[in-house]
Amino acid sequence: MTDEQFRYIEDYMLLCMKDSAHDRDHIYRVLYVALDIASYEEHVDYDVLIAACLLHDIGREEQFLDPAVDHALAGGEKAYDFLRFNGWEEAPAQHVKACIETHRYRTDRLPQSLEAKIVYDADKIDATGTLGIARTISYRADRAEPLYTLAPDGTVSDGSADSAPSFLQEYKFKLEKLYGKFYTKRAAALMVPRQKSAADFYRSMLAEIKSSYDPGRSLLREVLEAGP
Amino acid sequence: MTDEQFRYIEDYMLLCMKDSAHDRDHIYRVLYVALDIASYEEHVDYDVLIAACLLHDIGREEQFLDPAVDHALAGGEKAYDFLRFNGWEEAPAQHVKACIETHRYRTDRLPQSLEAKIVYDADKIDATGTLGIARTISYRADRAEPLYTLAPDGTVSDGSADSAPSFLQEYKFKLEKLYGKFYTKRAAALMVPRQKSAADFYRSMLAEIKSSYDPGRSLLREVLEAGP
Repeated sequence: MTDEQFRYIEDYMLLCMKDSAHDRDHIYRVLYVALDIASYEEHVDYDVLIAACLLHDIGREEQFLDPAVDHALAGGEKAYDFLRFNGWEEAPAQHVKACIETHRYRTDRLPQSLEAKIVYDADKIDATGTLGIARTISYRADRAEPLYTLAPDGTVSDGSADSAPSFLQEYKFKLEKLYGKFYTKRAAALMVPRQKSAADFYRSMLAEIKSSYDPGRSLLREVLEAGP
Repeated sequence: MTDEQFRYIEDYMLLCMKDSAHDRDHIYRVLYVALDIASYEEHVDYDVLIAACLLHDIGREEQFLDPAVDHALAGGEKAYDFLRFNGWEEAPAQHVKACIETHRYRTDRLPQSLEAKIVYDADKIDATGTLGIARTISYRADRAEPLYTLAPDGTVSDGSADSAPSFLQEYKFKLEKLYGKFYTKRAAALMVPRQKSAADFYRSMLAEIKSSYDPGRSLLREVLEAGP
């Protein structure tokens, strides 16, 4: 790939994601992690890999406007049309489309090629560690969801049995389960320190919340029972 | 304070902060931490302390609508009016007002009474640790600010010399400097594990971002220089 080829794909990505600095930064991290993973593999098609990384989330806006749309399918379609329009051959354009379609976890749509597996792993790495924590907290804030919820008895819930959405619930139901499902050995190695940083954050946060509520609720009860 | 007295102050707080679950949770944590701190002190006026904790942020909406308004001053005024209207004597209502006015760090307005110092410390404790991290990330997401920025040479900036706003910049300029300025011994003790959890998060995040950008940018350069 030439600088010029890189730039026009990058410009199209920026055009599709113009509203969110946060999402743009995610794209570059996925690209850079994918190149790191690829450097441990052989016979990587870098044109396909780079184009697929840059364009993997360009269907987000379509999904945002209509939640019934799957951004992986919409993005694959858009990327294919864009690349064909810009002179790419049918085969590599179809390959990029396939990488984008399978980058999102779906049991019925698994990454097949090496490049698709690298895109999948790199995107998932960005959901791990402190970056995964920060992205989840930001997403939660956008939807006005709380960090934690209280059980019916008023104690702080650790998220593992919650039905109401919260950051702690998202950690227990999704983030904690991300580890150990990578296609490439390099991604599995990159994940190790990130698994620890995310788990440390969850444990510290739960301890900090409980250390406020547990003594505080008893002390409030005592004060209120003592009366005026 | 009776249960009934607690409820009408709590209801007024909830009315003032009806739009944000996040802010409401902050109020309860501040109340519970304040009661914890108070349990290590003598001669605490619990009516004043509890009312000041519940009402300390009720001026937020006024500040949001007009950034020239200081929510500590607006909240103190609202709390005083509310308590006097509900039959509180002049002296305790003035005391609650003073606690609220000095809960925000200002060199020209320092907490004077024991209760004001406890409210100040409890509010500051909630800006430390993983909760301080999460509240900063949420606030940053609301303003569409990035987690980090890049230096002019394209490398990841650690936040310490940044002029542009980001989470890493906020950590270096504000969160990191919170520790060691507490009025009460109990708050200083509560802060120790929280200082570590916040510093661990910052270090891990910076390492994770750099471990993407540093090898990734070199590898991208190599691929683009190799050409088509």
